[in-house]
Amino acid sequence: MKVGVLGGGQLGRMLALAGIPHGHEFFFLDPKDDVCGTSVGTHVVGTYDDEESLKKLAELCDVITYETENLPVGCIDTLSSSVEVFPSQEVLAVTQDRLEEKTVCNELGVPTAQFVNVENEDNLQSALDELGLPSILKTRRMGYDGKGQVVLRDESALADAKSLCAVPCILEKMVMFTRELSIVSTRSKDGEIVYYPLTENVHKENILFTSRAPVDVDPKTEEQARSIAEKLLTHFEYVGTMTIEFFHMEDGQLLLNEIAPRVHNSGHWTIEGAQTSQFENHVRAICGMPLGSVSLRGFSGLVNILGSHPDLSQLLQLDGVHVHFYGKGEVPKRKIGHVTICCDSEEQLSNQIQQVLDIVSKAHQ
Amino acid sequence: MKVGVLGGGQLGRMLALAGIPHGHEFFFLDPKDDVCGTSVGTHVVGTYDDEESLKKLAELCDVITYETENLPVGCIDTLSSSVEVFPSQEVLAVTQDRLEEKTVCNELGVPTAQFVNVENEDNLQSALDELGLPSILKTRRMGYDGKGQVVLRDESALADAKSLCAVPCILEKMVMFTRELSIVSTRSKDGEIVYYPLTENVHKENILFTSRAPVDVDPKTEEQARSIAEKLLTHFEYVGTMTIEFFHMEDGQLLLNEIAPRVHNSGHWTIEGAQTSQFENHVRAICGMPLGSVSLRGFSGLVNILGSHPDLSQLLQLDGVHVHFYGKGEVPKRKIGHVTICCDSEEQLSNQIQQVLDIVSKAHQ
Repeated sequence: MKVGVLGGGQLGRMLALAGIPHGHEFFFLDPKDDVCGTSVGTHVVGTYDDEESLKKLAELCDVITYETENLPVGCIDTLSSSVEVFPSQEVLAVTQDRLEEKTVCNELGVPTAQFVNVENEDNLQSALDELGLPSILKTRRMGYDGKGQVVLRDESALADAKSLCAVPCILEKMVMFTRELSIVSTRSKDGEIVYYPLTENVHKENILFTSRAPVDVDPKTEEQARSIAEKLLTHFEYVGTMTIEFFHMEDGQLLLNEIAPRVHNSGHWTIEGAQTSQFENHVRAICGMPLGSVSLRGFSGLVNILGSHPDLSQLLQLDGVHVHFYGKGEVPKRKIGHVTICCDSEEQLSNQIQQVLDIVSKAHQ
Repeated sequence: MKVGVLGGGQLGRMLALAGIPHGHEFFFLDPKDDVCGTSVGTHVVGTYDDEESLKKLAELCDVITYETENLPVGCIDTLSSSVEVFPSQEVLAVTQDRLEEKTVCNELGVPTAQFVNVENEDNLQSALDELGLPSILKTRRMGYDGKGQVVLRDESALADAKSLCAVPCILEKMVMFTRELSIVSTRSKDGEIVYYPLTENVHKENILFTSRAPVDVDPKTEEQARSIAEKLLTHFEYVGTMTIEFFHMEDGQLLLNEIAPRVHNSGHWTIEGAQTSQFENHVRAICGMPLGSVSLRGFSGLVNILGSHPDLSQLLQLDGVHVHFYGKGEVPKRKIGHVTICCDSEEQLSNQIQQVLDIVSKAHQ
């Protein structure tokens, strides 16, 4: 099939690397001149709201998906008139808006941190009175990797918070979690669902730094994560791979933090760590194919590569290490690659992750 | 690095799929207008003896390799003046010529079937007198998948044999082997060698039909295969992946049948069946990187797809099955894809191979 992707970055590139062996061809719509998807597909240069570009993509493709949620929802509408698009416009619209997202979750019985709508600066004080400190003010839209957020531990950040209120925001009570977990799952057109195991994520300056899976958790926690994923996938009649980020609380409960209606950085370890990767399962789903087994190949870890390329030769010397450079230019803090580490034991994994971190950190010296 | 490949078929395509995650870019020189490598690299259209095309490729690339041995050796010479080429011109020249190949092997103490040089029709009878029947007349050059061969079981094939002698040939004594085995191994620039386990191959009408690995053989046989591979890789100061096909004799001995100075159909199972595939290790070697672990992920099988595409959805329903369609048009007997099957036991593997064969055979009904 001819598969169109809105966005031509590394997620699109890895979707194509997974889908090409099934005989599919890939087309990326992206406004940027130079995107890393070009090495594995055809780049259609155009903005996501340009009717001509959308028409061109629709004509080239049998099915369309997206690798970013920062899209005007109207583009899905435009495309849908002539070609199937997965996941749906509805789930994109809901997950683009933190207020909508958390409201839908609570309606479905999925717990989140307490939140209050902050339409403008005038509502901020009453919201703070309601939730108390510490809390976090977040723009309702377009936030990622920590952008569009102000942490309010005391009154000192109030000026920053007020200026953020130029756009609609929500105030969230800051929760005291023990760790961050995520679950990646895929739903097929037939409603079949596969769940990868919970992944533990460590962020550094709001950007994903390392991940590990599977996680040593109470089976009830794993069950809660799957049950939440099932609720959301079913509610949206979702087709494709979805990622849900959680806060893992002291009492074992999960609070939903964020939904990403797409393949996700915290699932990159599945390329080598699972029999079928999140990328292959996403492609299978949107192409109307049955899903593949998510059974594990031991213990897996992920280390993100930000800003500058570490020495490839040193990384490849390490057993169990798989390198993914995205073919992107070096810009400070930009995600330009990742390393997956697959091991037979957790101890070995910890050791190999440390060795990878040592090599990666040398690139920043 | 920018990697050039002479030939833009499925082997080139799978080299690129393995190398792109390391940040490499691929360029394919191929005289055909439409090659399946184009979806993962840049296609330079030109013949292998066209100086201009070779110059263009050399300018585009940091290192060059080949995915076919049916090349004029002079092209390696032309390229080598400005860019590194692996494997070397010498090994290409030797393996292109059955007489040279077997002579070098025997000189290195590597056993082959008995053979006699047949320069022209006049030598044929004396060669037959020397070796007796049954024997096989093969053109010295350009034979693959059974092309350029006449089997002489009795005098009835003599006319065909005589007409084959229009080009230089060798006559080989037909050996009574129990099965066909092959070994894929990779040598790095530093002289490090990794060996995949022996693979058992079943041919049908001279085209590879199924493969399985690892093989239940006497450890001495595995040792003999590795020792032969080591001798040849070292003799040629080889860089990259090499494949050696053997006849496995009743007494356990291996007779070398053919050397392929490249990644090989009988090693395709390594994409999912080994921690590092034959393709990734070839790319690592020619790019001057250390080699990756060849440790196995259970028992693997391969089924080739010839002529027409089987139902993708049916194949993907099977556990442990990985589909590789090459994006090639359907032509009777043309290799257009393969399926890898990875299982935890040999019994399970046999069962899954049968199920794949059933689905594949339906495409021919």
